[in-house]
Amino acid sequence: MPKTINQDIKPYNTKRNEKGNLEISGCDLVELAEKYGTPLYVMDKVSLLKIANEYKQAFSSYKKVNMMFASKALMTSAIAKILHEAGFGFDVVSGGEIHTINHAKVDMNFATFNGNNKTKEEIEMALKLNIGRVSVDNFYEIKLLDEIAQKLNKTQKILLRITPGIECHTHEYIQTGHLDSKFGFDLTQTDLAVETILKECKNLEIMGLHAHIGSQIFETQVYYDEIEVLIKETKRLNDKYNLNLSEMNIGGGLGITYTEKDCPPSVDKIAEVILTSIKDNCAKYNLDEPTLYIEPGRSIVGTSGVTLYTVGSYKNVPHFNKKYIAVDGGMADNPRPSMYGALYSAEIANNKADEPFEKVTVAGRFCESGDILIKDISLQSPKTGDILCVYNTGAYGYSMSSNYNNVLKPAMVLVNNSQSDIIIKRQTYDQLTQNDVIL
Amino acid sequence: MPKTINQDIKPYNTKRNEKGNLEISGCDLVELAEKYGTPLYVMDKVSLLKIANEYKQAFSSYKKVNMMFASKALMTSAIAKILHEAGFGFDVVSGGEIHTINHAKVDMNFATFNGNNKTKEEIEMALKLNIGRVSVDNFYEIKLLDEIAQKLNKTQKILLRITPGIECHTHEYIQTGHLDSKFGFDLTQTDLAVETILKECKNLEIMGLHAHIGSQIFETQVYYDEIEVLIKETKRLNDKYNLNLSEMNIGGGLGITYTEKDCPPSVDKIAEVILTSIKDNCAKYNLDEPTLYIEPGRSIVGTSGVTLYTVGSYKNVPHFNKKYIAVDGGMADNPRPSMYGALYSAEIANNKADEPFEKVTVAGRFCESGDILIKDISLQSPKTGDILCVYNTGAYGYSMSSNYNNVLKPAMVLVNNSQSDIIIKRQTYDQLTQNDVIL
Repeated sequence: MPKTINQDIKPYNTKRNEKGNLEISGCDLVELAEKYGTPLYVMDKVSLLKIANEYKQAFSSYKKVNMMFASKALMTSAIAKILHEAGFGFDVVSGGEIHTINHAKVDMNFATFNGNNKTKEEIEMALKLNIGRVSVDNFYEIKLLDEIAQKLNKTQKILLRITPGIECHTHEYIQTGHLDSKFGFDLTQTDLAVETILKECKNLEIMGLHAHIGSQIFETQVYYDEIEVLIKETKRLNDKYNLNLSEMNIGGGLGITYTEKDCPPSVDKIAEVILTSIKDNCAKYNLDEPTLYIEPGRSIVGTSGVTLYTVGSYKNVPHFNKKYIAVDGGMADNPRPSMYGALYSAEIANNKADEPFEKVTVAGRFCESGDILIKDISLQSPKTGDILCVYNTGAYGYSMSSNYNNVLKPAMVLVNNSQSDIIIKRQTYDQLTQNDVIL
Repeated sequence: MPKTINQDIKPYNTKRNEKGNLEISGCDLVELAEKYGTPLYVMDKVSLLKIANEYKQAFSSYKKVNMMFASKALMTSAIAKILHEAGFGFDVVSGGEIHTINHAKVDMNFATFNGNNKTKEEIEMALKLNIGRVSVDNFYEIKLLDEIAQKLNKTQKILLRITPGIECHTHEYIQTGHLDSKFGFDLTQTDLAVETILKECKNLEIMGLHAHIGSQIFETQVYYDEIEVLIKETKRLNDKYNLNLSEMNIGGGLGITYTEKDCPPSVDKIAEVILTSIKDNCAKYNLDEPTLYIEPGRSIVGTSGVTLYTVGSYKNVPHFNKKYIAVDGGMADNPRPSMYGALYSAEIANNKADEPFEKVTVAGRFCESGDILIKDISLQSPKTGDILCVYNTGAYGYSMSSNYNNVLKPAMVLVNNSQSDIIIKRQTYDQLTQNDVIL
């Protein structure tokens, strides 16, 4: 099978240009840093569309698939527009995500509202905008949603989020202990959920089941098994309650390649496992093949994004024969290293041909010892003024960014065909205090 | 010794009022939640001023102390103004923090600019605003700062940040391994730093040394020993280079009481240890007692702040006989539980007299399994619509907050003498996308 973008560390068209600088889709990263300043998030439209297409191709043999981008990985108006134009719908989890896709003029019918604690105001907002599906998470929400749908005189199509008893933590596939989750109905609770909906909720129409088994997943069997649980349960509910549940949302979670040690399966491989499991299990349990929803997030935007930093200060620690270099960003623009111990790959973007590699630790600029972006990485003699390109920051970088230390959020540019365009403007000092009130 | 605020879990004037609701400084928390919405950060001005005063009193016997609030714990214009009026200066670490204290009309002479990688633009901004001190972190910065000071025709008073070889990680006092830090000069490097400044940097005036030994510290001996290192080194540099270093910045780090298991020393106790060490070691090394800078952050604002949430959904996990309740905030308004495994105390703010306690896990609303605010806490039969008050969120709550899941940042109110005032307005959906550009 051919490689897909999530199996690469770098965006698709990354290379050294004639100046010896790194470029992505024809845009020189050193020039981008000069033009827009650093830290700078860079998104490659080519990689983004390529993996979107890889997903569509991989599932093209199946009758009906809805690709729902997991907005939490990166939700900004421009990205929403691009992915929508590429045929994606959206998995949204808050009023803010609904606001943003609406701002980008996404057809709300192609959105599913997920989450373990949607507020009344958010549900009202979603229903007024005619959201396609609500994935109902718990008994409290069944009643709340039905009340709101009644008030708005609507029938809302829903999925039931279940805890399938399968969970994948990165490299580890767990079939016990996984039921202890804040999300969804356990399989002992689905009967009561369905009965409640059928008997008491005239304004809800149940379309199928929804599950999600984890994030940054490298396993494939876990998807096969998840789908068996979903199909078996769908069939059981159909038979018991004389239903015709025709949809199945299997969530997302496909991993990407942060460093050479990460070996995620290709999109094609995941699709093959998913489609095989649907075929096998629909035959086994005698169910018509359902409309499939999948919710990839990280694998869509992760590899397409890099972050550019300028190297500032440096420090030698003679006692440990160690060198720190410090960049002008860190844990506020990318909290994953401090929050999860996440590992990243990086290289110096400006021309360093023939310069020797040196082992350094890349520190962030934030006043916290834990603000270390990359420990012990080999870089070509990094010096003040160099531009550092950190790969695979497209997912959960901007989306988790903070204003810690009152540092401004970086800008984001989209590169494509030798052109660069700002898609998120750099925050300003005035914006930092725009909600401050001095008594 | 009397207790000081950092030794309590709750703000100073917290009690149940005649309605059975929690109130702080005369403000009913249930009414605050109704009036301003949730999640809501609440800061108690009384506790804030009380601990500010406890610090001043505790050090009142010493000739010259500059209290420099560590802005990274919570930096917003109103808090800056209140603490400045209470006699505090500011430890700032970015252009954004400088902007904010300037916005609050703080006298910049009472600010020290710290940080391991200050940018050129930030240093220029600081010097143009006549910042009191710059704590210089590394060799690169010495040159950069001198160049900027020359260009602006200023002589900048500086401290030298050193790595004292002592570090305290919460309960653990470490005297080895501590030199591996991204911050400051190691003691083998101070001679070269001082020589560089004296020979090559005409626009820098070195006033003394600066160190910082950690955060959420419960030990006292660590301060005693840090001060010995600083005094011994100050004396050595004075003698070797014929200097008269007259200032000493010992950083901050005093802990607070998140749960009953935390036992931080009182402000008085810490002051006693610090002043005793200065006295002992100035005598031992024959140094005049220096002007002292201290940089408390968490201990000033931590206990004064609480966060109010509304309980929404709930979920039973029969398999584990476990109950989750979900609130309308979580890891975006308080990342400390997911980032550091931090523990918190909480109680239901509305009247629950006579209702039994129940062990629950408080989940946040964010789409991530790790978004759990408090595991296994006893609360009085929490139900949908209840207001949960989480204590000790004044430090590193708002300051580390993000827009993860595109959820809006909460508002903050200041309570005092039965009055409440907004000091940070709630973020709006329009602000969420104000920097978005759609191509």
